[in-house]
Amino acid sequence: MNTHQLIRELRETNGTKIVLLVADGLGGLPLEPGGKTELETADTPNLDACARDGVVGMSVPVLPGITPGSGPGHLGLFGYDPLEYRIGRGVLEALGINFAVGPRDVAIRGNFCTLGADGKITDRRAGRPTNDKCKAACDRLRTISIPGVELFVEPVKEHRFVLVVRGDGLGDAVNDTDPQAVGVAPLKAEGADPASAKTAAVVNQFIAKAVDVLKDEGAINGATLRGFAKFPKIATFEDVYGLKAAAIAVYPMYKGLARLVGMDILDPGSTLQGQVDTLKAVWNDYDFFFLHYKYTDSTGEDGNFPAKVEMTEKFDAIIPQVRALNPDVLIVTGDHSTPSKLRSHSWHPVPTLLVADSARTDAVTRFGEAACLHGGLGQFQAQHLMLLAMAHAGRLGKYGA
Amino acid sequence: MNTHQLIRELRETNGTKIVLLVADGLGGLPLEPGGKTELETADTPNLDACARDGVVGMSVPVLPGITPGSGPGHLGLFGYDPLEYRIGRGVLEALGINFAVGPRDVAIRGNFCTLGADGKITDRRAGRPTNDKCKAACDRLRTISIPGVELFVEPVKEHRFVLVVRGDGLGDAVNDTDPQAVGVAPLKAEGADPASAKTAAVVNQFIAKAVDVLKDEGAINGATLRGFAKFPKIATFEDVYGLKAAAIAVYPMYKGLARLVGMDILDPGSTLQGQVDTLKAVWNDYDFFFLHYKYTDSTGEDGNFPAKVEMTEKFDAIIPQVRALNPDVLIVTGDHSTPSKLRSHSWHPVPTLLVADSARTDAVTRFGEAACLHGGLGQFQAQHLMLLAMAHAGRLGKYGA
Repeated sequence: MNTHQLIRELRETNGTKIVLLVADGLGGLPLEPGGKTELETADTPNLDACARDGVVGMSVPVLPGITPGSGPGHLGLFGYDPLEYRIGRGVLEALGINFAVGPRDVAIRGNFCTLGADGKITDRRAGRPTNDKCKAACDRLRTISIPGVELFVEPVKEHRFVLVVRGDGLGDAVNDTDPQAVGVAPLKAEGADPASAKTAAVVNQFIAKAVDVLKDEGAINGATLRGFAKFPKIATFEDVYGLKAAAIAVYPMYKGLARLVGMDILDPGSTLQGQVDTLKAVWNDYDFFFLHYKYTDSTGEDGNFPAKVEMTEKFDAIIPQVRALNPDVLIVTGDHSTPSKLRSHSWHPVPTLLVADSARTDAVTRFGEAACLHGGLGQFQAQHLMLLAMAHAGRLGKYGA
Repeated sequence: MNTHQLIRELRETNGTKIVLLVADGLGGLPLEPGGKTELETADTPNLDACARDGVVGMSVPVLPGITPGSGPGHLGLFGYDPLEYRIGRGVLEALGINFAVGPRDVAIRGNFCTLGADGKITDRRAGRPTNDKCKAACDRLRTISIPGVELFVEPVKEHRFVLVVRGDGLGDAVNDTDPQAVGVAPLKAEGADPASAKTAAVVNQFIAKAVDVLKDEGAINGATLRGFAKFPKIATFEDVYGLKAAAIAVYPMYKGLARLVGMDILDPGSTLQGQVDTLKAVWNDYDFFFLHYKYTDSTGEDGNFPAKVEMTEKFDAIIPQVRALNPDVLIVTGDHSTPSKLRSHSWHPVPTLLVADSARTDAVTRFGEAACLHGGLGQFQAQHLMLLAMAHAGRLGKYGA
């Protein structure tokens, strides 16, 4: 049976509070065989204390060997099967610039390009314009209107922008118009079904008008579109878990992913301490708190092992303030691994800890990849983590008599 | 979503090479409580070095408690859900004698039997004839022809043969004609659907003619049929993984299972050294190499603990030659356990190791059942092994953004 339906049947309401701390890309690799990972190298007395006081394990984000992007990684942690719920590229791009995508929207990634006199692409990225030029070109595109739909154009950076088409009965089964090559004209959009044909007709008009309004923008005289995506049909966090949930994230992408499942999006400013202060400020207002920390991932993506170690230690330093709030359940994990050695997300399981009065503690006293292999949570699927959170919070009743 | 479809979406091509060494029936049991298994008793310095340099775990072939035959065991290792893809008995019997079953074929296991004057079975195995007599009787059956189909008759051994009916629109939902008893006549074949009724009509004619052509063969004067099976609809290895794959096996059954998923079947002769020599000879021609070693299973089936230990050591001895080729991913596992103590296949998880630059190594330095319990791969489903192989080979891109 459907896990969400099971949770709806079993869930109970009490005053307990659950904190989910996500250190993005937390898991790592040693640089040398037999060496230590970033997390194992870091001095993390507070996370180690959590490991000692609680139970640990290894989270498998999607399936063994599957490297998740941020979208599937977080959906798994939120308890949504990342293979069932797929978030299209256009929606993710819109979430990443904090655009509130809604159920009547088709979100699309746009690239400004340069077209020759014959209408063929001479530069797929329009000479990589400055962000200011991108914004100016988007302002031009905003003058376009098409009857029957609302259009939103938002700059991303350089040659990239987001187009959102809002209207009734729009589909997203539309081909990319970017031919992924120069010397050829942009493709016509075509819809694979009647609803998508409606979207295709709109964007074909949009692109024709774009060429007209961009004629004075120099190298930015055309645009291609790709990653057509509707807002996914997804039950809210409150509907599934009965939890009033707050998202305390700095980066738009993670705010967007939390908005996708209906969390309240708070504004903590741009620092980790600001996030912790926000957590304290709204402590009485919510049941569930998702706090996202970016820098364990970005330093890993940079291939900067010492910086990832340092960012891990900074993350460790705020743990006492969180524990001082006495959450009934405290979970620390990552949405995936980002080993500095690989300079990218990876498939390796993610160290995870859970502190709660009802936890069956294990012998592990250190928070790290090797130690967590011996933890009481074993290796588990990320999408089961919310079941464990709810159970340890006393929020899941007995299944069957 | 379907895992194979996911792999097709994510896979990338690079020059990496993957070696899968399958020591059939590798896992075992101690003879006495607290004792060592065959693998733990064996002196395996080279496998131990792999365990030290890589990551280990325990592979669950199908489900906990499920003992697989060779078919499901290998399908799992090849990344095909052994509960979804079922290989019928007739096809397995045909694969076992190296008959190249095709998509228009229904393969059937045949037994020669002795019929009394009243047409009732007096011996279900026709007095267990010699293999020569079996072959002679098969030669008689090959004289039979039936319009609209091609017939192939191949001896197996003693009273057993394979019948393959090749034609269009043939089904395999046909009952066994072997009544599993003496003193009764063989059953008529009946088809459960129109396509299978066509097959049933063919084999009923075949059996009637068989009685006629066998009338001078003494005790071999009749035949029964069972295990009607079509070639399963199964995507090829290249289609799923984009890997050009070579099978280096000695025994026909394993060549047949590899052929089922479209691997190229090489002829290494009959020795393990011949297999390794073949691996070296074709190293530049393939991306993936499946090397099958039989004797860890057959000695287990014999209940010969010391022989299984010895065969394990012989297997260990070739590991340096394989590692000298510098495969990007080297996996050593078994398709199931075959404990000498049980003299049969068993359900126990199978020690597995994986060596690759991107592996997150663990503290395990010994390849054996007890040691692998503490490995970084944990206990995993065999059908996920190919995902791990692809990931560690750098052949799987990121899922979602």
